[in-house]
Amino acid sequence: MDLDFSKTDGLVTAVIQDHESGRVLMVGFMNQEAFRKTVESGFATFYSRSRKKLWTKGESSGHRLVVKEIATDCDRDAVLVRVKALGPGVCHNGYQSCFYRHLEDGRWVESEPRSYDPDEVYGGGA
Amino acid sequence: MDLDFSKTDGLVTAVIQDHESGRVLMVGFMNQEAFRKTVESGFATFYSRSRKKLWTKGESSGHRLVVKEIATDCDRDAVLVRVKALGPGVCHNGYQSCFYRHLEDGRWVESEPRSYDPDEVYGGGA
Repeated sequence: MDLDFSKTDGLVTAVIQDHESGRVLMVGFMNQEAFRKTVESGFATFYSRSRKKLWTKGESSGHRLVVKEIATDCDRDAVLVRVKALGPGVCHNGYQSCFYRHLEDGRWVESEPRSYDPDEVYGGGA
Repeated sequence: MDLDFSKTDGLVTAVIQDHESGRVLMVGFMNQEAFRKTVESGFATFYSRSRKKLWTKGESSGHRLVVKEIATDCDRDAVLVRVKALGPGVCHNGYQSCFYRHLEDGRWVESEPRSYDPDEVYGGGA
């Protein structure tokens, strides 16, 4: 299970993809402990660079990411985690995916409606 | 087109996804110039952290990535680039995707055969 954590301050990039639809849901980072916890628990767990601690996605919202398969890339500094996403959306802003805006004529444009109300899930403090 | 380049030494994460199959092909990083060049040229261009310079994917192999759509995530520190991949494979090791190994009982196992011979494309120096 050796990954190369040396390139980004002890972290690897983690791409989260819906295992059925193939939609990319979010991107995060994992340190060695987060990766081990992801594998052992079966729930995607990240290292938050801003809060400087581990966080299991869904620990406050319940929107957990159930690991279905993990792949790594040629130089082992990134992982692709295929998941079943519990709940109506992965993004804390209320969308199915964090990638809810696309580039159109030089501007970021929302591509889709919200899939849930983040105020109801995160208590208005999201 | 404002992205947040402040979190990873002037870079954003760039996830490259096949626009038809949905397969995640590779992950790289873009600085502001690489992102601008990606948008303006229509070919995915990255910043190489090891070589400390821009590189347009395919400049030696011909396996370019034609941009079909670009999305960004909620905090604008990652982009998802949906592409048409020219050539038989994106990975310089000879596979369709850089994510050609998956985790199985604690070991990385190759999931697929090579899609081309990298020695023929990269002249044995890949």
